Order: sequence, then structure tokens, then C-alpha cells
Amino acid sequence: MEVPLAAASAAFLTGYAVRVLARDHLPRLGVDLCVGVILGAWAVFAADYAVRLRLSGLGPFRFLRTHLLDTVVLLLPLLRPVRMVALYDRVQRRRGNPRLGLYARVMVYSGLSVSLLGFTGALTVYHHEADAPGASILTFGDSVWWTCATLATVGYGDVTPVTPIGRLTAVGLMACGLALLGAVTGSFSSWLIQTFRREDDAPGDGGTEDGTRPPGDSPGA
Amino acid sequence: MEVPLAAASAAFLTGYAVRVLARDHLPRLGVDLCVGVILGAWAVFAADYAVRLRLSGLGPFRFLRTHLLDTVVLLLPLLRPVRMVALYDRVQRRRGNPRLGLYARVMVYSGLSVSLLGFTGALTVYHHEADAPGASILTFGDSVWWTCATLATVGYGDVTPVTPIGRLTAVGLMACGLALLGAVTGSFSSWLIQTFRREDDAPGDGGTEDGTRPPGDSPGA
Amino acid sequence: MEVPLAAASAAFLTGYAVRVLARDHLPRLGVDLCVGVILGAWAVFAADYAVRLRLSGLGPFRFLRTHLLDTVVLLLPLLRPVRMVALYDRVQRRRGNPRLGLYARVMVYSGLSVSLLGFTGALTVYHHEADAPGASILTFGDSVWWTCATLATVGYGDVTPVTPIGRLTAVGLMACGLALLGAVTGSFSSWLIQTFRREDDAPGDGGTEDGTRPPGDSPGA
Amino acid sequence: MEVPLAAASAAFLTGYAVRVLARDHLPRLGVDLCVGVILGAWAVFAADYAVRLRLSGLGPFRFLRTHLLDTVVLLLPLLRPVRMVALYDRVQRRRGNPRLGLYARVMVYSGLSVSLLGFTGALTVYHHEADAPGASILTFGDSVWWTCATLATVGYGDVTPVTPIGRLTAVGLMACGLALLGAVTGSFSSWLIQTFRREDDAPGDGGTEDGTRPPGDSPGA
Repeated sequence: MEVPLAAASAAFLTGYAVRVLARDHLPRLGVDLCVGVILGAWAVFAADYAVRLRLSGLGPFRFLRTHLLDTVVLLLPLLRPVRMVALYDRVQRRRGNPRLGLYARVMVYSGLSVSLLGFTGALTVYHHEADAPGASILTFGDSVWWTCATLATVGYGDVTPVTPIGRLTAVGLMACGLALLGAVTGSFSSWLIQTFRREDDAPGDGGTEDGTRPPGDSPGA
Repeated sequence: MEVPLAAASAAFLTGYAVRVLARDHLPRLGVDLCVGVILGAWAVFAADYAVRLRLSGLGPFRFLRTHLLDTVVLLLPLLRPVRMVALYDRVQRRRGNPRLGLYARVMVYSGLSVSLLGFTGALTVYHHEADAPGASILTFGDSVWWTCATLATVGYGDVTPVTPIGRLTAVGLMACGLALLGAVTGSFSSWLIQTFRREDDAPGDGGTEDGTRPPGDSPGA
Repeated sequence: MEVPLAAASAAFLTGYAVRVLARDHLPRLGVDLCVGVILGAWAVFAADYAVRLRLSGLGPFRFLRTHLLDTVVLLLPLLRPVRMVALYDRVQRRRGNPRLGLYARVMVYSGLSVSLLGFTGALTVYHHEADAPGASILTFGDSVWWTCATLATVGYGDVTPVTPIGRLTAVGLMACGLALLGAVTGSFSSWLIQTFRREDDAPGDGGTEDGTRPPGDSPGA
Repeated sequence: MEVPLAAASAAFLTGYAVRVLARDHLPRLGVDLCVGVILGAWAVFAADYAVRLRLSGLGPFRFLRTHLLDTVVLLLPLLRPVRMVALYDRVQRRRGNPRLGLYARVMVYSGLSVSLLGFTGALTVYHHEADAPGASILTFGDSVWWTCATLATVGYGDVTPVTPIGRLTAVGLMACGLALLGAVTGSFSSWLIQTFRREDDAPGDGGTEDGTRPPGDSPGA
């Protein structure tokens, strides 16, 4: 039941990406196909949402409150692929792979989410900016560069969105992405400090060499 | 006793917003009305402050020290609407709504405060910049865009204030807003890590699916 | 023994500030006076350092390592006024003022240090930039505005230093100031979360109203 | 066994630095020498990696997962000098120097890593930008200035990379450097708060004077 949703997410993102990136080289039929894929994926999301609402036995408003993120994702389906990260986590677990440590999992999970959000944001901004008068984001490369500078809160300002939708996307990217990125860097910092602290407790000779191994490994590896 | 203050706050903010945003289209009477509303709201704030000072039984300086924020808010009444957030919290509680978890409350509270502060800051900057020579913030949209980039510490620099008052507001916005925004993103990160940790303790099948639900929900929802 | 040092610090900063800010209007004698004050204060610092080194009974290198900050401050005496903050703390305590809570003290201490560092940095940058060819920092106001944007890591880039010394100062300002500013905002966030948590434990009616009081107050105030 | 690797790292970085910084003044022979040093150092790294893989007794994929950082460092040998920091730590310990406190060690370790990463990043960006059409990073000084503004997330935007490789390096610098820098500032903040807290527990007269000494000193020093 999760698999078709993830497939629809991937189809949605692929359709949108092809539509945006190949827009000058796409024949009329290709555009129609992309739009069809996008609408089809959206229909799958809406059906899933309706089924879950029915099954939950809650009123619409209570459901909306307890599943706030699901609702937002329904309205902004470009956020949907972020949910694929949860699926990836489950697949890893089914395969019996050893679970990563807490910080490593937060880093991987948030890092993947940030990457997907960033890619989606770069697509959206490029889509709305490329043809705008006075725009400085002219290529998809510019858009990706701008997205990275925004997510890292560096914000050079050499290229910036000028259209209302581009700026709205930018604000959303700042709000969502910064918190996730904060989780990544915060986890990394915590892990670094934790590694140093563990080394403090057991200052053997062999323990120091592997100060760079990821968390979750056994100390004697 | 809180309700009239909140009403005065809303009136103050509305009066100021109408005054600033509709300044080119406002008849003489409208301007006078806005100024009247603003002054009336201010009088309410001053009266409330005086009554509290009298009731507290403290000397003016001790009162000023223990109620520092109230004093600042009296002098800069545009900060007043932030207090409405506390009222919102109380209303939620009276209605018997289930309380949100700690992190969710910090996020909602700080998020609302940041939004109000940001809106007020954008208004003030637009008010002082729009007519300044050499200004780059020409529309209210520019001002909101600039405010978002400032609060997220991205700071593109494509539009920046040039007047002394605009820059003073900007510094205040950085100082107040960044700390609040830090609380929001910090809470989100903490909650994310907490969610992962809880999942660690109880790695059941059903628990994973709702990794996206807000904190405070019962695990079996 | 601390008082003359603090006086020398204040004299040093005042002499440098007058020298920099009034340089176009200062007669020849005024310049000489400022330079005299600056050199005199520096001599006091060097004497103090020598006395402490002698009294400590340590070798110069061990003393240098355990008093690293003192050594840096001796070489860059513009950092010296930051030490005045410690004096302010002691005076507050002698007067028997009730001590602030932990977070409030960190906020006040770091906030004062950041302000002093920022003022000193703005002075230095203005001193070296104002006459440089192609400079964008032309007035002291520009310099202060640039300092605030730098300390908040916003970095608009509308005005930036172009001289080597200006840029070196900027890097120092980033390194020192950001950590201190991180302490301020981190403390504020921690205090905010702590306040919410305390409220969680004792959800009385009267406790909510004062959600805005500074830490360290008794709950029944 | 660590010493030759560290020597190779230093040789690699030196060769690359000479190649990049002196490129206009280097005779044909010098260029060949630099390239020879770089390739030789790389061969040492590859041999070391192969030996470790063989000795570990793990399959290539499991080895790759548990030694992820080593693999990345093999492919991007400019990151290699960061490993020298671990050697520095070991040398300090062999000499019997008193170990620094936890936070001080995190600060020193991360600070050194950030400096090395920053220097390497500045070299790489300067190497690819200096001749690019429309570049704003024209001297190595510009490149260092840009690196500092990037690592501090200030991002003025007065100089920015324009080539694809320069921008890729920038993104890597943001990702690696920011987390390390976050560790430095986070440790400094934690240490500051810890110092204040310790002072709270023992508010003697002598303890306050040395509020500026590095962590790890005995309180009676």
C-alpha cells in the first residue's frame, strides 16, 4: 500500500522534472504526457487521503489536525517525495541491515529530505524564474546553486528570485529546509562531541585511530 | 482585562497597517481615523501599564526591572501584538483542547511571534524606505521578501534598507527574530531527534508509519 | 587593582574612538592627545601583564598557555574593554543585587561583550575603509550597519570591506562575535524552552500571565 | 605508519598550493615537479587504502561502508590533510602534555579541520575561478575572503564563484565546513554556559577573576 504511493511520488517528481527541464525541446505530445502523469499521480494521492480519512473514523477537522503534514503534502504534492525517505528506511530494516546509530539516522534521513526538498525547490524556482523579465536565475544550474546557498543560509545574492511564486518557494525552502539542515548539522556536532566524550572514557591506543568511523559501530571494530 | 488589551493591540496594528499600506489611496479623513485609532490604542496601553505599576506596590525602578519586556512593549507598541499569542494560548486551554507537546508549543508560540514581528517589521521598513532616495525596497512585497531573507539569516542583499530608521528596524528584527527563529528550528530539530529516539525504543511496525505526526499524540492513534 | 585596568581600557577605547570618529575635525594637538592616551593605556596593560607573569611563578610559556586570552588581549588591546564586563558583574554582586538566573547572566554578559566587540570592530573597519579606493563603507553609520549584518550572519553585502586590514577585522569579528552571539541566542532559546517546561509542571492560572518575566524571579511575583 | 601518510598529505597539499599560487611564475620544470609530488602522494594514499582493505578481512563493500570517510578522502585527496589533525592530537598525548577539556579539544580539533578545509577550498576555488570569464574572484586574497564569509554563513556576495567546479567546491565547503564550524561555536557556547554554571556553584572571590581561562585548568590555578 506504501509502494504504489511511492511509485506515484516518483512519477510525479519525474513528470514535473521532465516538464520543467526539457521544456524547450519537448514535443507537444511529451508535454501532454507529463501533465497526464502529474495529474494521475495527484489523483492517487487524493484517493489515498480520502481512504485514510474514511478509515480513521475521525471527523475531517480532527483528522486534519492530527495529520497536518499529510494535508499539506496533499495540497503541495511536490513535498510528497520526502515521504519516500520513510520507505527507504523501512526497506533497509526489512533487509536486516544493521541499524545505524541515532545521530547517523537523523543525518541520513534529514539529509535525504533536504536533498529532495532542494531539488524540488530548484525545479519550481527555475520553472517560474527562467522567463521572467529581469530574472537572474536563467539556467537550472543557477537555480541549484541558489538553492544550496539558501539552504546553507549563506545567501550570496548573486542570483535571486524576482517573481512572487519564486519568492514564495524561496520562503518555504528557507522555513522547511533550514530546520532539517539544522537537524543534520546539529546531529553531526552532537555526534562529534559524543565521539570525543567516548574517547575520554576509554583513552586506549587503538580507539583513536578510528575517530572517523560512523556512529553505531562496535568500539572494537 | 486581557481582552480589551488584545483588542487595542489588534486595533493598533490594523490602524498602522492601513495607514502604511493604503497611504496613496487614503483620503484625508482615513488618515485621521488611522492616527486616532493608533493614539487611542496607545492610551489604553499606557493606562494598563500605570494600573499595573500602581497595583504591584513596587517602586517604579524595581517594577521596570521585573517587567522589562512590558516597558519595552509600552515604548515600542508595534511589539505589543506579540502578546496576543499568550491570549491565543489561554483561549486554546479554556476550550479544553488537548495541549500540544512541549516542542510543538514552543514552535507554535515562537512561530506566531516571529510572524507578527516580521509583519510589523516589514510594515515599518516599507513605511520609511518607500520614498527614500536610492531605496531598493519599493513595494510592500519587497519589504516582506527582505524580512523573510533577514529572519532566516540568508540576507541576499538584492534589496536592503538605506534609511537610518529602516536599518535600526532591521537590527531589531535580527536581534529579536533570530532568537525566536532559533527557538523554532531548535525545537523542530529536538523534536525530530526525540522522535527518532522514541522509535529506537519501540521499533514496532505500526509506530513507524506515523513518523510525521505532531508530538503529543498517543502512540496508538 | 581591577579598577585602574578598567579605567585604562575605557581610556584606550575612548582615545581610539575620538581619533577615528573626529579625524577630520581634530586639531593637531587633539590627535597627539589621543595617541598619548592610547599609548599610556597600552603601557598600563603591559605592566599588568608583566606583574601577573612574575607573581604567577610559572614560566613564560606555561603562563602564556594558561592565560591565552590575556595574551591575545595584550596584543590586540581593542579587545580589552570586553574584560570590563567582568568588572560590571562584580560591581553588581558587591551591591548585593539579586543575581540573575543562569541564562539571563549568559545573555547579559555575552550581549555586552558582543556590543563592545561590535563597536570596536565597526571603529576599526571604518578607520581603514573610509579612505580606501573603491570602498563602500564610507560613513561610521555604514560601518555599524555592516557590523550588525555580519554579527547576525545575515551579510547583505550592500557594503563590504575591501582593504586587507578591514577584511581581517571582519574575519575576527565573525569568529569571535558569532560564538558569543550563538551563546546569546542559544541561551534565549534554552530559557524560552525552560519557561514552557516549567509552565507544564505548574499550569496554574496566575503563572501564565507572566510568561514574559525574566528568569530568576520567584514564581509568585 | 601514520607518519609517512601525514608526510604524503603535507607533500600533496604543498605541491598543490605551489602549483596554484605560483602558477604564473613557475618554470616548466617546477610545474612537472609539483605534478610529480601530487601523483606520488596520491599513490601512497591508494597503497595505504589497499593494504587496510586487505588487512581488514572484510569485503570491499562492507569496508567501504565502515570506512566511508577514508574512501571519500581517497577520491578527494585534498581532504586528506584534515587527518593530520588526528596525528597532532596523538603527538600532544605522547609528549605527556595535560589533555585539554572536552570542549577545548572539540574546539581545537574542529578549528584546525575548518582551517585546513578552508585553505584547501580557497586554493581550489582560486585555481578554477581566476581565469574564468566574468569571474569576481581574481586573487587568492579574494578567495580566502570569500571562504571565510562562506564558512561563517555570512555570504556577502561581493565575490562569488561562477564556474561549475568553483560552485561545486563551494557547496562542499558549505556542507563540510558549516557542520564543523557549528561544532566549534556550539562547543564555545556550551563551555561558556558551563563556566557560568560552575561559577554558580562556587561563587568565591578568587574564582571570578579567571572566568577567561580555558577549560581543564584546576580552579585554584
